[in-house]
Amino acid sequence: MNTMKVALLQTKVSEDKRENLHAVREKLRSLRTERPDLVTLPEMFNCPYQTDLFPAYAEREGGESWQELSKMAKEEKIYLSAGSIPEVDEEGRVYNTAYVFDREGRQIAKHRKMHLFDINVTGGQYFKESDTLAAGDKVTVFDTEFGRMGICICFDIRFPELSRLMAQEGARIILIPGAFNMTTGPAHWELSFRARALDNQVYMLGTAPARDLESSYTSWGHSIVTDPWGNVLGQLDEKEGVLIQELNLDEITRIRRDLPLLESRRLDLYRLEKL
Amino acid sequence: MNTMKVALLQTKVSEDKRENLHAVREKLRSLRTERPDLVTLPEMFNCPYQTDLFPAYAEREGGESWQELSKMAKEEKIYLSAGSIPEVDEEGRVYNTAYVFDREGRQIAKHRKMHLFDINVTGGQYFKESDTLAAGDKVTVFDTEFGRMGICICFDIRFPELSRLMAQEGARIILIPGAFNMTTGPAHWELSFRARALDNQVYMLGTAPARDLESSYTSWGHSIVTDPWGNVLGQLDEKEGVLIQELNLDEITRIRRDLPLLESRRLDLYRLEKL
Repeated sequence: MNTMKVALLQTKVSEDKRENLHAVREKLRSLRTERPDLVTLPEMFNCPYQTDLFPAYAEREGGESWQELSKMAKEEKIYLSAGSIPEVDEEGRVYNTAYVFDREGRQIAKHRKMHLFDINVTGGQYFKESDTLAAGDKVTVFDTEFGRMGICICFDIRFPELSRLMAQEGARIILIPGAFNMTTGPAHWELSFRARALDNQVYMLGTAPARDLESSYTSWGHSIVTDPWGNVLGQLDEKEGVLIQELNLDEITRIRRDLPLLESRRLDLYRLEKL
Repeated sequence: MNTMKVALLQTKVSEDKRENLHAVREKLRSLRTERPDLVTLPEMFNCPYQTDLFPAYAEREGGESWQELSKMAKEEKIYLSAGSIPEVDEEGRVYNTAYVFDREGRQIAKHRKMHLFDINVTGGQYFKESDTLAAGDKVTVFDTEFGRMGICICFDIRFPELSRLMAQEGARIILIPGAFNMTTGPAHWELSFRARALDNQVYMLGTAPARDLESSYTSWGHSIVTDPWGNVLGQLDEKEGVLIQELNLDEITRIRRDLPLLESRRLDLYRLEKL
């Protein structure tokens, strides 16, 4: 059996960037006996989820947080999907950016959130990421010893086009650091992960910050793993925690053979493509 | 409030075509006091769901079943989404075809199932529609006094591309006659309707045959209505029955404004189009 052990860290985010990084390092050390192949972190795990703070916390690629995270991946000899953090480019634009490191600490993927989260639900959640963030423009897939994976961030999951494009490019596992809220979380979090997993016959890993009722944006939590049949393999509640799952990668192949959805697309009648 | 009353007829399918049509007529009459605007019927409601029987039951467009259904729509002054029935074209090809009639009994839409259902689940369901059926090649939307609708058939729902294309063409309500089975039904029926409704912010109506344990293909039943927020508004069990729902069409507009998913697509980065 071809398996991969994953650990999703649902961490609590404080206002202290160094403390957030330190907490991750401690958690990784405490996980050593579990010997995970891949560890994933939440969206904006080193910075409160507040648009006005993103620029202040932002670093260049290769900056302090990046260095720390790369070192952690190398020390633990794990693949590390380092959640997302605010990134600033040379023109001063700020992005919501997810880095992935391999067992040697080398960056093997970088995704800038492509769909910014602007929402205004009547009587519910208001949030406008585009107040301070710029959007990415790349579909991100990358290769590992476990096959090809894709990564995107939170609101990106809303768009079936993006997951489909990653699957079309060969992704068999899709990683999503994300922070749904108390309006969209109960309504759409699990549904979205199950649906994208089923439609594309991939494993989906969603890693969220723990809920903090004192923060201005309240995370739904509920870090989740869904399988290529659309089932929930495991899901946390709202508290700090670690979700450890063994993924049977042979299931991807079996399910794609039994119910050949990707093959059954009518590519003679419609086409989804990157521009 | 801008509303539409719908009635989904979950009928039992016998081997007698005329009896199946007669049963629909009786049900429509018994529904008169409810005054539905739109009535929907199941996939292959006039013919057992067996590939070897489709050619024997098939009729040309405008044939006996078509005539009866058109007359029913006119008599009841309803929109009638007449499930699907086997259709044969002038070259002898057989299709799984859905007709829709308006309150005058005029055909306003015709959809030939575009994705044929070929499945072979290890230890589960085997079925190969393509043994006897040809596939359609059109995305089907149509206009009514309640706005634009789309229609497709059963396995067609599996492909996010098709629902998205209908939404791109303006559909606000999508009708799906469908017969999931005892493997895919419990696993994927509700999930698929909720996901397509949420992603495209449309109402979805799924109308299935009642379960008949003596038939060779066992329908999951569970006719369903999901709303543009991804909620299940109503769902039947496996038995014969009618699901009556009042749809608040203003909800489509409100939800698309609060959470502007369609507007937030990155059409500068990817494109889904008909060929």
